[in-house]
Amino acid sequence: MPGARFATPVFSAPAARSPNLPRQDSPSSDPSRPAWRRQGARPSARHVGAPALESADAVMSRCDELALCTEEPDRITRRFLTEPMQAVHERVASWMRAAGLETRIDNAGNIVGRRVSPGATRALVIGSHLDSVPNAGRYDGVLGVLMGVAAAEVLGETPLPFHLDVIGFSEEEGVRYSKPYLGSSAVAGLFQNDWLGRKDERGVTMRDAIASFGLNPNQITKASYADGEVLGFIEPHLEQGPVLERADSPVGVVSGIAGQSRLRVEFVGAAGHAGTTPMHGRSDALVAASHFVAAVQRIGLDRKGMRATVGRFDVTPNASNVIAERVELSLDVRHVEDGPRELAIADMLTDAARIAAAERVGFAVLENTSQSAVAVDAGLTETLCSAIAECGQEPLRMASGAGHDAVVMAQRFPMAMLFLRHPGAVSHHPDERVERDDVAIGVEVLSRAITRLAEQSKSDA
Amino acid sequence: MPGARFATPVFSAPAARSPNLPRQDSPSSDPSRPAWRRQGARPSARHVGAPALESADAVMSRCDELALCTEEPDRITRRFLTEPMQAVHERVASWMRAAGLETRIDNAGNIVGRRVSPGATRALVIGSHLDSVPNAGRYDGVLGVLMGVAAAEVLGETPLPFHLDVIGFSEEEGVRYSKPYLGSSAVAGLFQNDWLGRKDERGVTMRDAIASFGLNPNQITKASYADGEVLGFIEPHLEQGPVLERADSPVGVVSGIAGQSRLRVEFVGAAGHAGTTPMHGRSDALVAASHFVAAVQRIGLDRKGMRATVGRFDVTPNASNVIAERVELSLDVRHVEDGPRELAIADMLTDAARIAAAERVGFAVLENTSQSAVAVDAGLTETLCSAIAECGQEPLRMASGAGHDAVVMAQRFPMAMLFLRHPGAVSHHPDERVERDDVAIGVEVLSRAITRLAEQSKSDA
Repeated sequence: MPGARFATPVFSAPAARSPNLPRQDSPSSDPSRPAWRRQGARPSARHVGAPALESADAVMSRCDELALCTEEPDRITRRFLTEPMQAVHERVASWMRAAGLETRIDNAGNIVGRRVSPGATRALVIGSHLDSVPNAGRYDGVLGVLMGVAAAEVLGETPLPFHLDVIGFSEEEGVRYSKPYLGSSAVAGLFQNDWLGRKDERGVTMRDAIASFGLNPNQITKASYADGEVLGFIEPHLEQGPVLERADSPVGVVSGIAGQSRLRVEFVGAAGHAGTTPMHGRSDALVAASHFVAAVQRIGLDRKGMRATVGRFDVTPNASNVIAERVELSLDVRHVEDGPRELAIADMLTDAARIAAAERVGFAVLENTSQSAVAVDAGLTETLCSAIAECGQEPLRMASGAGHDAVVMAQRFPMAMLFLRHPGAVSHHPDERVERDDVAIGVEVLSRAITRLAEQSKSDA
Repeated sequence: MPGARFATPVFSAPAARSPNLPRQDSPSSDPSRPAWRRQGARPSARHVGAPALESADAVMSRCDELALCTEEPDRITRRFLTEPMQAVHERVASWMRAAGLETRIDNAGNIVGRRVSPGATRALVIGSHLDSVPNAGRYDGVLGVLMGVAAAEVLGETPLPFHLDVIGFSEEEGVRYSKPYLGSSAVAGLFQNDWLGRKDERGVTMRDAIASFGLNPNQITKASYADGEVLGFIEPHLEQGPVLERADSPVGVVSGIAGQSRLRVEFVGAAGHAGTTPMHGRSDALVAASHFVAAVQRIGLDRKGMRATVGRFDVTPNASNVIAERVELSLDVRHVEDGPRELAIADMLTDAARIAAAERVGFAVLENTSQSAVAVDAGLTETLCSAIAECGQEPLRMASGAGHDAVVMAQRFPMAMLFLRHPGAVSHHPDERVERDDVAIGVEVLSRAITRLAEQSKSDA
């Protein structure tokens, strides 16, 4: 998910451990023998086969290996088409080829592995991104790509009536060029050439970054699928939230990607001496803003599926003995349906105006932008749910509160998302975790879903 | 008042006007003729004589003149014993001498003008400070000194049974050495020699600063009055608040100087993704802190004479899409009685603990310091009230929420304070204002109070 970074961990890792080295206590530290056999561990699911378990072990150790491909020592930072992405491509390509996929790098820097089905005209696409935020975890994005490779491994020689494409998108986080979804935009044919003129913090244009990587920035359109070529797109991804963990479910299916409103608002009162200004008649911007935060919380709690957050809160002059003159704060509201989200924003702004009048301060909305909710494909999602049930799990459906490559892909292709349980829900941080057994279930779900889609495809034909 | 600075004005002045130049629209711009005669203006009081009105004009133009004695071009900054204080001393000494006072500079840099009464053993002291905060107004402190000089002018040849001392304290704001009340501490015999080792931001010790000014840092004790020498201390000062303006009163009498509690508290929750973390179960430090700010306001509003302010509020990580992990905030509570203040603090902390539990966050008090309330002298204050009534004004009594030199002087001498109406209540800022007519009433009140004290002194004898 682009944009969100947790500057501070919720659960701190022991300081001595380097986040980029494979965990010494990890089941994958002895790759000669699968951990679940070595330790006697068993997946929580009853219907996961040995191939999926072995592939899950490979996914875990490959995530560890890719974590070493980084711009910065001792932490994972891998922005769009920086040098470590070359090493990532080499490794991912070798794993793809070992799984029987033909590989290529498109002109937007996406790596695409195709499991060719002779005579097929359409492709099922599985993918996620290979870039990272600064000081990232090792699973966000990478996990989905490697689960796609693992699904191909599990499928083995099983014939399919469509190509299976596994894509590692070059860019999703929006870090280097303050523009997220570069990779999936190219694949979906939505890349805009004026983005090529953007500069990174060192002044390098996107055009030059692409050319320096050995690609042709003038032929990015070639990265796009043709109309009708894509049967569907499935993105496996860490949940980046606590819902599956609280529900004790290893996997879930996304029911829709939440729309989001982002506002900046200000309350402007009158500075005054904290000791000499009587309480009655004050115009305290901090008091008004605090009442507003409470109102946002109340509306967020009252309405099902709503997420409402004030995360930034800047006070002027921010001195202990001066009544605050001004507070500027952020408001982030998300819901999987646009109507309830827009109604909530309207109600919050009504509350803000009421509070401002009561506290004798001014109130203004400085910025109010939004993106609509993104629907998933009903059929593709239903197939994922059936595959989850086959694996003996409850197919829990949940909204995605964060954006993903799937947001862009859904604009042109049928889209579904598979979420994996995220222990601790710490994302964009070295402490990001996922359980090997959950990965095994996810890989099993993917391979069964692909098999089901193949059967549907045959019966459709 | 030390410590408080308003970084932002409540009422902005036209940007083009230099704050340090005499106002072009000021009645004092043509010193050849008193403005109240020139413009036909009349004071709002019925009982103010022509001498007080003329002295008030002089006070206004002298404040303008001292505003030019500054460390920085285009703004008023005059810290303890910096070079501009030499120019201030020259001017104040010349006005004092013209009013018939004998002048001296003591070893703490205070200027003392004495209206000698032959044979008297005691002194009535009137004074305030001559230093300023950075980017100050022209009246805070200076006004009280020049009103003392004006009172001496109005008294003319009237014989008094005591000396009248007018003091311009060298330091009250605590800017240069992070230690306020240096001047009054010396006069009250409370100066501590270990302060001499303190260094300013350039590494200059207080000892060296005093010596460079031509004074003897080893003989600061000489600045102190002897026991029994001081009949009383009266400090005239701008209110630095809106009470007199709201009450439509030109002057007021201080009923006591508020005690103050200063706390730093923190709320610690759990960071989380604003889009993926459900509302229920969040541990949002910003929400908890906001509820606390509302509780502080409620307690402050409910209890008479209370001032309760959260002025500083720092959020971590302070990002729009991340649930706040931590908020550290300041709490400033003042009351003219210590009991109600301490009870309010206890109630606020009880509320904080309740809020923290409800919001699933941690709460801690990081710092909790306080200073007790300071009582005024009943007799001296009653004399000021009577003088105000003689001037046809209601003697409004009010607490001082800010500290003053009077806080220190009260530790050794009977103390009273006369407040002047403060239009706009903007203090520690170039927009600081006072009305000439209010100054005239204040000067009249002072001279009448001195006359009353003289009568009382005779009848006591």
